[in-house]
Amino acid sequence: MSAHKILTFVGLLAIASYVAYATDPTQLQDFCVGVNHPHDAVFVNGLLCKNPMDVTPEDFLFQGIDEPRSTNNRMGSNVTLVNASLLPGLNALGISVARVDYAPYGGLNAPHIHPRATEVLTVIEGTLFAGFVTSNIPNMGNKFFGRILKKGDVFVFPQGMIHFQFNIAKTPAVAISHLSSQNPGVITIGAATFGSKPPISVDVLSKAFQLNPKVVNYLQSRFQMGP
Amino acid sequence: MSAHKILTFVGLLAIASYVAYATDPTQLQDFCVGVNHPHDAVFVNGLLCKNPMDVTPEDFLFQGIDEPRSTNNRMGSNVTLVNASLLPGLNALGISVARVDYAPYGGLNAPHIHPRATEVLTVIEGTLFAGFVTSNIPNMGNKFFGRILKKGDVFVFPQGMIHFQFNIAKTPAVAISHLSSQNPGVITIGAATFGSKPPISVDVLSKAFQLNPKVVNYLQSRFQMGP
Amino acid sequence: MSAHKILTFVGLLAIASYVAYATDPTQLQDFCVGVNHPHDAVFVNGLLCKNPMDVTPEDFLFQGIDEPRSTNNRMGSNVTLVNASLLPGLNALGISVARVDYAPYGGLNAPHIHPRATEVLTVIEGTLFAGFVTSNIPNMGNKFFGRILKKGDVFVFPQGMIHFQFNIAKTPAVAISHLSSQNPGVITIGAATFGSKPPISVDVLSKAFQLNPKVVNYLQSRFQMGP
Amino acid sequence: MSAHKILTFVGLLAIASYVAYATDPTQLQDFCVGVNHPHDAVFVNGLLCKNPMDVTPEDFLFQGIDEPRSTNNRMGSNVTLVNASLLPGLNALGISVARVDYAPYGGLNAPHIHPRATEVLTVIEGTLFAGFVTSNIPNMGNKFFGRILKKGDVFVFPQGMIHFQFNIAKTPAVAISHLSSQNPGVITIGAATFGSKPPISVDVLSKAFQLNPKVVNYLQSRFQMGP
Amino acid sequence: MSAHKILTFVGLLAIASYVAYATDPTQLQDFCVGVNHPHDAVFVNGLLCKNPMDVTPEDFLFQGIDEPRSTNNRMGSNVTLVNASLLPGLNALGISVARVDYAPYGGLNAPHIHPRATEVLTVIEGTLFAGFVTSNIPNMGNKFFGRILKKGDVFVFPQGMIHFQFNIAKTPAVAISHLSSQNPGVITIGAATFGSKPPISVDVLSKAFQLNPKVVNYLQSRFQMGP
Amino acid sequence: MSAHKILTFVGLLAIASYVAYATDPTQLQDFCVGVNHPHDAVFVNGLLCKNPMDVTPEDFLFQGIDEPRSTNNRMGSNVTLVNASLLPGLNALGISVARVDYAPYGGLNAPHIHPRATEVLTVIEGTLFAGFVTSNIPNMGNKFFGRILKKGDVFVFPQGMIHFQFNIAKTPAVAISHLSSQNPGVITIGAATFGSKPPISVDVLSKAFQLNPKVVNYLQSRFQMGP
Repeated sequence: MSAHKILTFVGLLAIASYVAYATDPTQLQDFCVGVNHPHDAVFVNGLLCKNPMDVTPEDFLFQGIDEPRSTNNRMGSNVTLVNASLLPGLNALGISVARVDYAPYGGLNAPHIHPRATEVLTVIEGTLFAGFVTSNIPNMGNKFFGRILKKGDVFVFPQGMIHFQFNIAKTPAVAISHLSSQNPGVITIGAATFGSKPPISVDVLSKAFQLNPKVVNYLQSRFQMGP
Repeated sequence: MSAHKILTFVGLLAIASYVAYATDPTQLQDFCVGVNHPHDAVFVNGLLCKNPMDVTPEDFLFQGIDEPRSTNNRMGSNVTLVNASLLPGLNALGISVARVDYAPYGGLNAPHIHPRATEVLTVIEGTLFAGFVTSNIPNMGNKFFGRILKKGDVFVFPQGMIHFQFNIAKTPAVAISHLSSQNPGVITIGAATFGSKPPISVDVLSKAFQLNPKVVNYLQSRFQMGP
Repeated sequence: MSAHKILTFVGLLAIASYVAYATDPTQLQDFCVGVNHPHDAVFVNGLLCKNPMDVTPEDFLFQGIDEPRSTNNRMGSNVTLVNASLLPGLNALGISVARVDYAPYGGLNAPHIHPRATEVLTVIEGTLFAGFVTSNIPNMGNKFFGRILKKGDVFVFPQGMIHFQFNIAKTPAVAISHLSSQNPGVITIGAATFGSKPPISVDVLSKAFQLNPKVVNYLQSRFQMGP
Repeated sequence: MSAHKILTFVGLLAIASYVAYATDPTQLQDFCVGVNHPHDAVFVNGLLCKNPMDVTPEDFLFQGIDEPRSTNNRMGSNVTLVNASLLPGLNALGISVARVDYAPYGGLNAPHIHPRATEVLTVIEGTLFAGFVTSNIPNMGNKFFGRILKKGDVFVFPQGMIHFQFNIAKTPAVAISHLSSQNPGVITIGAATFGSKPPISVDVLSKAFQLNPKVVNYLQSRFQMGP
Repeated sequence: MSAHKILTFVGLLAIASYVAYATDPTQLQDFCVGVNHPHDAVFVNGLLCKNPMDVTPEDFLFQGIDEPRSTNNRMGSNVTLVNASLLPGLNALGISVARVDYAPYGGLNAPHIHPRATEVLTVIEGTLFAGFVTSNIPNMGNKFFGRILKKGDVFVFPQGMIHFQFNIAKTPAVAISHLSSQNPGVITIGAATFGSKPPISVDVLSKAFQLNPKVVNYLQSRFQMGP
Repeated sequence: MSAHKILTFVGLLAIASYVAYATDPTQLQDFCVGVNHPHDAVFVNGLLCKNPMDVTPEDFLFQGIDEPRSTNNRMGSNVTLVNASLLPGLNALGISVARVDYAPYGGLNAPHIHPRATEVLTVIEGTLFAGFVTSNIPNMGNKFFGRILKKGDVFVFPQGMIHFQFNIAKTPAVAISHLSSQNPGVITIGAATFGSKPPISVDVLSKAFQLNPKVVNYLQSRFQMGP
């Protein structure tokens, strides 16, 4: 086995080691900037991190979150998630930030769940219809909380709830979101249910959604194409 | 305002107070049995709990988890969740248990998410097809892990993943599940997406699922009827 | 004792009870909107919260974060912190958001510490010089990480570190910050050290800062005036 | 030093790295299946885990928990603990499951403590006398909560309490237990007190238990033989 | 129901509410001094605490930990635990301190477990034999770590392990211990096993400890007398 | 790259891996003694730790905390922090201990913050003036809690608050402190503000402290010299 491979594993381990901090109730050091190769690393307070002597202000910086992203896709939206891999100084601090662009007339950030984070969305430009659905609350079912949001509005999507944003205006929309995890995770309902690989058996989905198997086949064919 | 109402609020507060323990990283006392009325309660180690002098072994006991439940409903399944309200001694200990009955030939515990717990399912009787779908993993999409389970099989559904069980045999099936939270929460995908109150707007759902609005209307009408 | 006073206490308890959730490692319910009076409250999943039937989308909304605030004060800056008291739906979700306005030519968000949160700052308008200082790292002392930030830059201030932002341009600056706690707390170094009530004894401060007692007296007189 | 040994260490580190997740308040990924050798591993969301492409449903499966185990030993009981080493998919999810077999007429799961987990026991077959003892509660001492359990009964043993189960019937008994930790730990009171290696000095034990040193010597000789 | 009783319940709730903080991973406020009656309390940052205006330095002070305590009892030792009830300012900070006095020639702090804390013991005066026993480690059993400690020695008893201290010198001994919980809990092995109320059945204990039932009866009679 | 270097990295990783435990809400093993080289290590319950077979009571022992340290320095104080690097058995248990010596007539442990721990200080010898300052409490500013402490007094400094101790007597003073973290961290206000490397720009500090730039220059020159 080559030294290079060994190094790669060690590198992975290095990352594994300090990322294990990301949700610790309290930190064990001021910060722990990610390293790509362990030969960049030193022993800082019992944790493998980039040598503080080598850490620069740029390790805590991400640039260009104000730059529009293309929304030329099927859903007409584009999510740019800034996490520890794009912003190494974020590592182990349990928070991340995202920019979302929405195309005019129907740009949609489709219904999805962040299994590991609450989202706080701030509208920077445009007008959105946004909302979330609760879990099955006894004697109440699944309650939907939806609202039109304008520039300067801040809206909360509690952790684990199905939520979406939809551009209902003729101008593009932009939002900045912050999430209470270094890796919130995304479960897009349609894609996870009908686009999984391998697909969930048609008899399960047709019974669950009370759909004609032909409709389930159609849905699966659409989502198998990917977003 | 009547003394009764005040008592009720105080009672609610009592419950609120100790349930706040349920996910504490460590406990502050041996146990804290739930009380319905604060006049049953005493100050035990800084927490309002049932008076330990009044606590009986029955407070830690739930009976009849071996009794079959009716599966005579649309999905052909029945989930009996034993949580702190049915088993007061479970309070503040961060774990719960459930029995699931499945009707022969297609009893389905429809695709759902527990936003706050990992589930460990043990098959007691029968044969199930069970599985879960991952979140959107880069370059991999949503991977489905499905498998036929027989009596004596133990299967894991990681926290926050869409999962289901489906009875593929001609005999009833029974499973015992344990969940890593006192209140796992349930988000049934179909009901939460198409059965919310008020409903999510048709244009959002038809774009998200790429369905003819008529199909969305049909789905909403079905799920608005409830399970 | 009047029913009103009792209610007030119960009200405080209600708040106390669910705020106890704010830093729980996992939630026990979808959300728990704050209530001002327990007679607005009901028992939702073992927690005293606003009745979900009464919860509206507005409970998850804060408006006007895009509106400029006055920076006509001694430091030439203005921090608007949106926490659970301004945005009840944020309650128990462990995250908050802030807007900071900086006057042209030297508007300063003076050196301070958030003892309970990491801050992620996004520059919306203008140009800032920002930075933080590490704790006493062996063989390295207190390292300062400072940088000029422009519109679209995102910068991280790790939890517990002394940090500041300073407007070095001739135009006003605006930033949106997110903090990984429902109540980050603020310790402004100058005010906490020289402006405490009662003041720290002059001999302690003059020795700690190696300043002539007269200078300490001057500093205390300035900071006793408040910001 | 041989490449093989290096690999072994790296392998251990791999395991160490992701196991560090087991009690994290929230996860950083959907799952993290254990790997035996780092060359099976890839970088998945900052954690060293089995390559999701290689993960199979079998990684989440344990079979045969319905098979009886031999109770032909001194205590007449047999505990089969299914943890992450037997069921890799359990890794980092903070829950484990066990099967306990009890011989007829006195099969005993002797008094023990799980220092890191609450146990929820479900009786599958037979009749048990089970109970636990509280810690030293002021003005109450150590309260014992004991009860006869029959098939279908669920009983709770709170974390850190001394507890046991005893078969009082003429038929074998079987229980399925779930524990709120990936590694609950077991402290069997008799063995830990009188069977430690090296033994605790006789004068300490004879004073602590107010026993004749000869009786302590006898107890130590019995427990030094192991279970 | 009398206003006094209502107040009492409210008072209990007050205590319950903020004590719920004791093990939170991070605090939500600087401090939260305990209150005995809610009419002493105010709303401080979403938590019911003593009014900060009324908080005095004395709330953070405990005096007399240097004063010897009587060791004139059966075990010849005396533990003074300073927790949030003796030192209200400790409330919600997750740490406590204790003084232990040991009589000459055999003063014993009998084998016990703190289910909720690691203990760090510092010998202030005298000479102790101290140690702890591990849980059942595979292929190793229960390992005992014992050592003679002299003035100025610091020794660690990991959370949940059986441990003790024994005065082996002809002079009194004194130790200061710190524990990583606001309420560590104490399970004294002998008292919990043989002195519980009601007693554990003799057949269980005689089998578990392989003792003649007569010896178990004797032990129970001794421990039923209490310490 | 030499095998030695690889080993070093692996060693760092080993340390990194288990230190990741230090603030876990619950442990996954009895203890995990630190290792300097992975070839000393074995796989113990999914964590890389010193081989329990090789662990000795000395791994849990630190000696000489009763020995006076020199206070012959500018501040006239000396802090000896006993953490996991001096006492390997402390590793992963989330607590540390310190001895502080104070010179007569003005020995000062200068105002500082522990960003990651609450401190409980016990006066062993002498007389101290000690106190802490709160964060900016609305309508109250920064409240100072100061008090004269004598031998046998225990005082609490809540996590994240600026605090100090000052010897006001003509005899030396000694204190034993315990901190609720394996690595509390220290931010000495004067040194962090005026002694950082590189220094914070004079215009920021002169505005923040409302000091003549000359005074800031003087302060920076003093603190650049180090303690």
